[in-house]
Amino acid sequence: MQLHPMWDNYPNLQIDLQAVLTTIEKNVQIRDKQVEQNVKALIQAGGKLLRPAYAMLAAQIGPDNNRDRAIAVAAALEVLHMATLIHDDVVDDAPTRRGIETIHSKYGRNYAVYTGDYLFCICFKILSSHADSVSTIEFNSKSIEKILMGELDQMRTRYDLKVTVRQYLSRISGKTAQLFALSTYSGALQSKATRFQTRNAWNVGHYLGMAFQIIDDVLDYTSSNDGLGKPVLNDVKQGVYTLPLIYAMQGNAALFHPLLEKGLDMTDADLKELLELITKYNGVDKAFALANKYTKKALKEN
Amino acid sequence: MQLHPMWDNYPNLQIDLQAVLTTIEKNVQIRDKQVEQNVKALIQAGGKLLRPAYAMLAAQIGPDNNRDRAIAVAAALEVLHMATLIHDDVVDDAPTRRGIETIHSKYGRNYAVYTGDYLFCICFKILSSHADSVSTIEFNSKSIEKILMGELDQMRTRYDLKVTVRQYLSRISGKTAQLFALSTYSGALQSKATRFQTRNAWNVGHYLGMAFQIIDDVLDYTSSNDGLGKPVLNDVKQGVYTLPLIYAMQGNAALFHPLLEKGLDMTDADLKELLELITKYNGVDKAFALANKYTKKALKEN
Repeated sequence: MQLHPMWDNYPNLQIDLQAVLTTIEKNVQIRDKQVEQNVKALIQAGGKLLRPAYAMLAAQIGPDNNRDRAIAVAAALEVLHMATLIHDDVVDDAPTRRGIETIHSKYGRNYAVYTGDYLFCICFKILSSHADSVSTIEFNSKSIEKILMGELDQMRTRYDLKVTVRQYLSRISGKTAQLFALSTYSGALQSKATRFQTRNAWNVGHYLGMAFQIIDDVLDYTSSNDGLGKPVLNDVKQGVYTLPLIYAMQGNAALFHPLLEKGLDMTDADLKELLELITKYNGVDKAFALANKYTKKALKEN
Repeated sequence: MQLHPMWDNYPNLQIDLQAVLTTIEKNVQIRDKQVEQNVKALIQAGGKLLRPAYAMLAAQIGPDNNRDRAIAVAAALEVLHMATLIHDDVVDDAPTRRGIETIHSKYGRNYAVYTGDYLFCICFKILSSHADSVSTIEFNSKSIEKILMGELDQMRTRYDLKVTVRQYLSRISGKTAQLFALSTYSGALQSKATRFQTRNAWNVGHYLGMAFQIIDDVLDYTSSNDGLGKPVLNDVKQGVYTLPLIYAMQGNAALFHPLLEKGLDMTDADLKELLELITKYNGVDKAFALANKYTKKALKEN
């Protein structure tokens, strides 16, 4: 299977990530072969496998390189990520993901809901079939709980025009950074790293996750429809206000509210005006600067 | 909290089930207090707590009465059941459940999808915080996998006019009997029952689950809207053909197909005609007879 070209210069990591994919494929066995094919297509459609990659890298921190267990944990984390993607697509009514039609759009939300549930379960199956202790699973389920609280929080603050930077950071911390942190932490743990090292690994993952989500949100404002597999400004229309917009609105709320209140009825002209306002008030630049700060924090932890 | 009156004559079991409810309440902590309230309302709305009850009863089989662990397992199973109910309501677009408005209908499918996910995760959290070994969790996640395969299977066979009794039994075995079997099995396991006893407990749960689901499906054809918290003949309109209909159709398919093919467009007159046909060809009686057979099998295992 073809890995994302971003790993081209990392032959060892490529071998590990192939093993992660094999583990996932082996564990995803859906009786309806069409749906199975679609889940596997989602795996193969150029996902970057960032979370497994971080887990595998962190698995080199400690002295005990238990590769099999690290691969299982990495696979479980990616399966979990896929489950949340499929459910996100149900919630967002998204037509495509990674350039291919979503399960939701192709087979209906019924299939998408249960397929996501199925993958949640596979995540725990893989974890428990390789975990060395119950406490690993307990820790994982507590982390996953936080991720889902982040999603529920995001629902709650939709269309909230007064959302603050602090609330945004707390939301992405749960929704994204938690899973990145879990990946680096779990990897480190499998390698029997010291307590100090695993805590550091957690922090690195957390900071990288924060930076990743901020950049991902910036892309929603700056990239064109063809560059990525998802439409631009989708978040804004759905009432999910992210960092570039929140920064730009600071002190200028009155200019933005009439536009944002239109929600799903925003026209192309409205969106254009919104983008101009965000540029004018440096929303994107400020967001980038904060992402940079998080990246630097991550590097300092090493 | 008020337990279902069906347990009125079982004071010991009542104490255990209250403890199960307390464990669930303690573990369900959603930041959005409105949603939390609604999840708790669902718990309190007269669910029969059948699965926890079976788990607690089976926990008396073996010599080691580890009540705390049995209660945790019972709570985890009920939380899992709730998660599937909430997602079922999303899939079925159901307006009410146990007589109260569904989360799906009240807060939108977004909340319902993530709330179900959240409860899935809480199930594993409770399990892992009390499980004595990784293999317990592995066994549980494999069982849950089968339950979800049953749901996916049900999707696949919707509106299939040629569905057989065998296919129906295989579907409810995964969808319902698996969780009943898991309940009795897990209860027995917590009490350190012998291998033979836990296998028996599994079989009892399986047979009871089969009987339960058949009766539940019969009720869809025989009960009125006010008696239960869900509308009658809902399944048929949604293309889910259950045992009374499948039995009645045997040898008489041509009479049923023109009606069934209308799907969601079936009128009240169509439904009345369908019910008359099912009565004429003894669909309900035959289904009841099979449910009885399963109940007897369950009793024989003891």
